Amino acid sequence: MTTPQQAYQELLGLAREIALLRSVSSVLSWDRETYMPPRGATLRAEQSSYLAGLIHRKWIDPRVGELLSIAEADGLTDDPESDVAANLREWRRDYDRATKVPPELVEEISRVSVLAQTTWTEARQKADFGIFRPHLAQHIELARQVAACIGYSESPYDALLDEYEPGLTATRVRRLFTALRDELVPLVQAIVASPRQPRTEIIHRHFPLDRQKIFGEAAAAAFGYDFRAGRLDTVTHPFCMGIGPGDVRITTRYTADYFNEAFFGILHEAGHGLYEQNLPTEAFGQPVGEACSMSIHESQSRLWENFVGRSRPYWEHFFPRAQQTYPAALGDVSLDDFYFAVNAVSPSFIRIEADEVTYALHIMVRFEIEQPLIEGHLAVDDIPAVWNETFERYLGLKVPNDALGCLQDIHWSFGGFGYFPSYALGTLYAAQFFEAAHRDLPDLDEQIRRGHFAGLLDWLRTHIYRHGRRYRTADLIERATGQPPSHEPLMRYLRAKFGELYAL
Amino acid sequence: MTTPQQAYQELLGLAREIALLRSVSSVLSWDRETYMPPRGATLRAEQSSYLAGLIHRKWIDPRVGELLSIAEADGLTDDPESDVAANLREWRRDYDRATKVPPELVEEISRVSVLAQTTWTEARQKADFGIFRPHLAQHIELARQVAACIGYSESPYDALLDEYEPGLTATRVRRLFTALRDELVPLVQAIVASPRQPRTEIIHRHFPLDRQKIFGEAAAAAFGYDFRAGRLDTVTHPFCMGIGPGDVRITTRYTADYFNEAFFGILHEAGHGLYEQNLPTEAFGQPVGEACSMSIHESQSRLWENFVGRSRPYWEHFFPRAQQTYPAALGDVSLDDFYFAVNAVSPSFIRIEADEVTYALHIMVRFEIEQPLIEGHLAVDDIPAVWNETFERYLGLKVPNDALGCLQDIHWSFGGFGYFPSYALGTLYAAQFFEAAHRDLPDLDEQIRRGHFAGLLDWLRTHIYRHGRRYRTADLIERATGQPPSHEPLMRYLRAKFGELYAL
Repeated sequence: MTTPQQAYQELLGLAREIALLRSVSSVLSWDRETYMPPRGATLRAEQSSYLAGLIHRKWIDPRVGELLSIAEADGLTDDPESDVAANLREWRRDYDRATKVPPELVEEISRVSVLAQTTWTEARQKADFGIFRPHLAQHIELARQVAACIGYSESPYDALLDEYEPGLTATRVRRLFTALRDELVPLVQAIVASPRQPRTEIIHRHFPLDRQKIFGEAAAAAFGYDFRAGRLDTVTHPFCMGIGPGDVRITTRYTADYFNEAFFGILHEAGHGLYEQNLPTEAFGQPVGEACSMSIHESQSRLWENFVGRSRPYWEHFFPRAQQTYPAALGDVSLDDFYFAVNAVSPSFIRIEADEVTYALHIMVRFEIEQPLIEGHLAVDDIPAVWNETFERYLGLKVPNDALGCLQDIHWSFGGFGYFPSYALGTLYAAQFFEAAHRDLPDLDEQIRRGHFAGLLDWLRTHIYRHGRRYRTADLIERATGQPPSHEPLMRYLRAKFGELYAL
Repeated sequence: MTTPQQAYQELLGLAREIALLRSVSSVLSWDRETYMPPRGATLRAEQSSYLAGLIHRKWIDPRVGELLSIAEADGLTDDPESDVAANLREWRRDYDRATKVPPELVEEISRVSVLAQTTWTEARQKADFGIFRPHLAQHIELARQVAACIGYSESPYDALLDEYEPGLTATRVRRLFTALRDELVPLVQAIVASPRQPRTEIIHRHFPLDRQKIFGEAAAAAFGYDFRAGRLDTVTHPFCMGIGPGDVRITTRYTADYFNEAFFGILHEAGHGLYEQNLPTEAFGQPVGEACSMSIHESQSRLWENFVGRSRPYWEHFFPRAQQTYPAALGDVSLDDFYFAVNAVSPSFIRIEADEVTYALHIMVRFEIEQPLIEGHLAVDDIPAVWNETFERYLGLKVPNDALGCLQDIHWSFGGFGYFPSYALGTLYAAQFFEAAHRDLPDLDEQIRRGHFAGLLDWLRTHIYRHGRRYRTADLIERATGQPPSHEPLMRYLRAKFGELYAL
């Protein structure tokens, strides 16, 4: 007879094995994006899919279900905030999700993804939605099947959202997004109409690549990102890879005539990196040692990139250093002009190039399409028209073609429905955390002005990092800030900052 | 009932799985030596040892033994040169070796190695053999146990040699080494005594690091090393890592005031890399898709580094390019002086810095100690005295301390007895291959003089690379060259080349 305590210990061992295999997988992914020679791609795909299969089989083993049932049956979960209870709750969730979807369906999605990514690439190149349409339709049908397997009470979209945001529902997303949009659209309109506009040519001067690397690394290190437990490499599509304790790597890409791309990209990835580097090391392999959710992860990248890195106090400290680093580009520029230029707001077509104010509106356009698509209320053929109409309503721009519209993101080509909301929610939550940190640390602006970030890092460690997945997203936010998730802190922040910049 | 054909198919599947896991392990090792942040070392050790355990358990599974017995019992092995027969023969060898040594003994060796490496590092630093002595004694005792488990007919050293050189015996090594030494020692003495000596300061001028990288990469690419299936990185201890089909990476280290280190290091690793890149891709995961032995691998690195890269025809082509690349260092140097300088011969204490002529003598000193140690005819305490006496006899130098003597190599600290001979045998075999290639390609020197290496590469592909482990080392050599392994081609080569250079 296995006792509950023994079952829990066995689960701990298994989870650590799986964590090790995942960390190995992460090394393979990082290497693929950074240094792998091109002809190694076939072997790499085989290595990664072999490990993925190994991990999946270990996890869906009926023994895991037995162990969970034994461990749950006892008093181990009496204190729901204990490591044991939180781990069992999250393992149960992961196990149920993994076992509810039959392997044939998972394989079918991965088969369709290969073809869909090829046709998506071609469709985007030719700005022709028709080329991508059949595979997108297949993906939607498969996503609906996944939702049916997993189950939901209101909308099949909830079952997909739950993959990235455990427990979140479309209704709650819609409530937050609608409230935000109603205030954001007029703010964007006011900014666009303002006679006061930044001199954006400043950030398009010449910034030598080798100096960008040094300046960016120094900025990440100043935040507290530990380069003895990380590194910064150059890639096409930047990311942060948390391999495991002591090994969290960030990446960026450099453009010589655009300051923002690499610099704010580095701060963004360093934000993700700080979260990963400050998870509780001793709980490696357990849910309480893992990041809470996609949106909380994104809140950390946005917080460091925008709320800190694009703030006036930040540049009061760093602008003189930027001038020393780039005397030719910035020698004749004032702090005010530079600060305004890095915060320029301007509606544009491509999400990943969007500024701090318009970004969430790009996400809302996608949410307005994804939800009815999955619920069966929107036909695939109608996507371009609905996209263009919604985009114009939110951002005031007429989409000239689908490459600049509904074909711009890779996500749908691998069946990633329900992923987009996390990006906007991250910004919302970042505002809420930053407001709460200001309340708890009244001299936070002054600390940032002196280039000291240890106070903020410590606040985030205490309220977010150390908890791992102990609390679900909404719960974590309420505990950290005293308020449930809300759009108000973000609107307060945007109004104050951009009201001043654009003299609204 | 499993048929022999089914058993063979099942073994193929299992071997491919193991090959995939090994290739993953190789990525981890490469990353550890190149880009892993220092704080990632603990996790990396855990990842690697987890994978090593996984691989080992898969391989020693009794099912493998059953499958081998079933497959061997049938006519599958009738044609001993067929893929099937060669694979079964080599799998049997690997399986027997792996299962004969009990896991406790393997663990004990790895436990002792951790301590032994620490004491070896300290002992070398302090040039004090006594510090390393107890752990070396433990390692020798454990190595003797390993030999007893594996079995041997003449000497326990044979069982250890067999790990790196399947089927080779100490008697055969001794015969080759003795014949070589008897001719090599007088040659070295004649070279040292020659009034004609190279101007070695030429290769110690200033060679800018960035140019060394470009020049070295171009040289490797000219050999046919495929950079789309490989790359060149900087490390402390250079190596070549054959990850798998399409992914074979080489490394080097640069010294600004020493031309030879990086350049010939790159040619050496490119030689290993060419072997790995030209193994039969379709046989990945099978013995017939793997390198034949350590000595054959080393013959390829030595062949490209020395027999090609240090030859006169080679520099007739590349020296003008070297002058263009390093005008300040080489502008006033003649081809003859440069060619002589990169081929300088001078007895010295450290093996890894030894030249082409004296290198094998360094190995023989180690062999003269390893064999009686393992056979129990030499006491650990006597190692320094025997080392120093043998070294002076072979190389004419008095060893001033053990750091420059018996403590210089890491190998014994991880119990790597029987490994050293492969280094010298590689040079012997390289000479034999190069002589045979010259016979088959009468204009080979002229091809090299024009910077064309495709003919030589093709010869090596035909006679060595494509066979994998189909033939054992001695057999492969005899098939490729028409002669059994012999020291004569090497001596003919050395006499001709250095006789001319040193006007003997």
